[in-house]
Amino acid sequence: MASATDESLPNIQFGIMGCAEIAKKITRAIALAPNASIIAVASRDAEKARRFIASNALPEGTRAHGSYEALIEDEGVEAVYIPLPTKLHVLWAVAAAAKGKHVLLEKPTAVNASDLDKILAACEHNRVQFMDGTMWMHHPRTARMKEVLSDPGLIGPIQLIHSSCSFSATPEFLENNIRIRPDLDSLGALGDLGWYCIRAILWAVDYQLPSSATALPAVHSNNAGVLLACAASLHWDDGKVATFHCSFLSNTSMDISVHGASGSLQLTDFGIPYREDSASFELTTGAHFRELHIGWSKTPEEVLVATYLPQEALMVQEFARLVRLIRSSGGHPDPKWPGISRKTQLVMDAVKRSIDLGFKSVTM
Amino acid sequence: MASATDESLPNIQFGIMGCAEIAKKITRAIALAPNASIIAVASRDAEKARRFIASNALPEGTRAHGSYEALIEDEGVEAVYIPLPTKLHVLWAVAAAAKGKHVLLEKPTAVNASDLDKILAACEHNRVQFMDGTMWMHHPRTARMKEVLSDPGLIGPIQLIHSSCSFSATPEFLENNIRIRPDLDSLGALGDLGWYCIRAILWAVDYQLPSSATALPAVHSNNAGVLLACAASLHWDDGKVATFHCSFLSNTSMDISVHGASGSLQLTDFGIPYREDSASFELTTGAHFRELHIGWSKTPEEVLVATYLPQEALMVQEFARLVRLIRSSGGHPDPKWPGISRKTQLVMDAVKRSIDLGFKSVTM
Repeated sequence: MASATDESLPNIQFGIMGCAEIAKKITRAIALAPNASIIAVASRDAEKARRFIASNALPEGTRAHGSYEALIEDEGVEAVYIPLPTKLHVLWAVAAAAKGKHVLLEKPTAVNASDLDKILAACEHNRVQFMDGTMWMHHPRTARMKEVLSDPGLIGPIQLIHSSCSFSATPEFLENNIRIRPDLDSLGALGDLGWYCIRAILWAVDYQLPSSATALPAVHSNNAGVLLACAASLHWDDGKVATFHCSFLSNTSMDISVHGASGSLQLTDFGIPYREDSASFELTTGAHFRELHIGWSKTPEEVLVATYLPQEALMVQEFARLVRLIRSSGGHPDPKWPGISRKTQLVMDAVKRSIDLGFKSVTM
Repeated sequence: MASATDESLPNIQFGIMGCAEIAKKITRAIALAPNASIIAVASRDAEKARRFIASNALPEGTRAHGSYEALIEDEGVEAVYIPLPTKLHVLWAVAAAAKGKHVLLEKPTAVNASDLDKILAACEHNRVQFMDGTMWMHHPRTARMKEVLSDPGLIGPIQLIHSSCSFSATPEFLENNIRIRPDLDSLGALGDLGWYCIRAILWAVDYQLPSSATALPAVHSNNAGVLLACAASLHWDDGKVATFHCSFLSNTSMDISVHGASGSLQLTDFGIPYREDSASFELTTGAHFRELHIGWSKTPEEVLVATYLPQEALMVQEFARLVRLIRSSGGHPDPKWPGISRKTQLVMDAVKRSIDLGFKSVTM
């Protein structure tokens, strides 16, 4: 029996649902992934889908659909990539799953966990794979960092995590972008950037949910009430604490630092590495102050990790690998990725609720 | 008239009040500073003072006093360095000032702002210079970073500051050290390490006090109720937020990151530089994601700053310079340093109160 990684197996056939800017990146990623291909693109306007096909150099026969409905009715499409505005996720992800399409869904996965649960239930019921589009999870640097965090001799029990994700949005973005429109993405910076912070924090603690989340009184919203910046602290019963800040009003940042009892790990480009071919992080372990405290016994070590494919192509490859496994063996979807998405969404919900409650602590 | 920096002027004559470990570092710093000398050392035991003089290679004639009282009665002593346990600061700093001695006081300056105010009032009344022992303030890297923060084209309005200061204390430290004994230093990790975080945060915002301080529910205390670790968030009315974490239970860390609207500044050894002859920080300014978000337009720049003297010697030099100015011109003490100490102490008090109030927000 052929294994799911067998190169002779046919590629997973993707349909792209919507021609958002991010869809260009995933289109390139699918082209780079060795086990995936695009066979169809949908937009609410077939002409727009055709233009997307042409400008992204997709193969001749790629089908242009003038509706999302047509895409999920396309029998050749095995998996859909959905970069639609967040509010539309539940509608189209559920519809795609109902048609037996595997779902690669852009983050944030939904406007709340209740909506996400509908998506996950549909995927489970229809035995299709679900994965969210958090690309950095698939970079080999992430796996290397997890090895470091798991080695009791290097970091030790985690005490403090801090993350910041931000960019300085243009006036045009702040006026018109879907990520700040309440009808399309009510979570704003929390959904777009806080998602990364929350995911990174959960990733660092092996997805152990915090016992409480408390938003900090440092919120910026636009006139429609959509978050442009916010911050929160997360707490675990063992005294571990995480803080994060996400903002459309600050400089470009993608920081995470993890401090344990005996070492720390830090990087400033975790979500999107500075360059595509390799990425690094700083590791300090067992450092102490020299006698008289006139210096340190050691300086941070830079750990460099090369990658043969960009992280988004590795994400597509992993998703397609799981889909192939289901296709070839008739097996169940891998529950790991839906589980991680759900926990991220639950923490995001708790932070949002804390903001809505005037920064009260929300028990999880 | 001779200027205070004139090398022909006699050195400021220091007395060291107490033979704590940190006193060795300052003894070396005074030896390195070109305008200061040690002429006396006091301990509650004259023999201990004599041993300190011998083991730190102080000059033959250095006087050993068997009481702090004797030191402040020593007419040759112009300035005292006080590394005593925090609870004793108010007693001995006030007594030294009353005898006309200038006061270089180890941090935390007092167990609360009310005690510090007594010290500052005594210094002001007796026209003696006050400065706390926060050494990193005097490193040329700090001045260079302040230039960067003040340049509107580099960082822009500050949005987020995060700081972590910690070390992993030995069991012996956690059992016996004065910094965890309620009768000697009731502030524990907040006083010893949180002091650095708070100072760094205030320094970054040009000492604008936050409007509120809120401790996070991430406190570790010993059996006597002394803080071994804590965390807090500070808030300004313009939405700026700072978070910090200080701990005796975590790896060695001295991080600060400052994120502004257009750039960021980060370093992981702000309190004690990794090495003595130079120190660096990372500056990112005007970075954005490249097209398709497959990388960044620029990576952080490392800014390296050399120093001809260790930061603690520069601190002593600056303190002695101010004392010389008073001595030569009969002028007033420089109010800058007492003012900075007081603001640091006020924020520390607010964080402590927030902890005592069960993590309620404390308005400043």
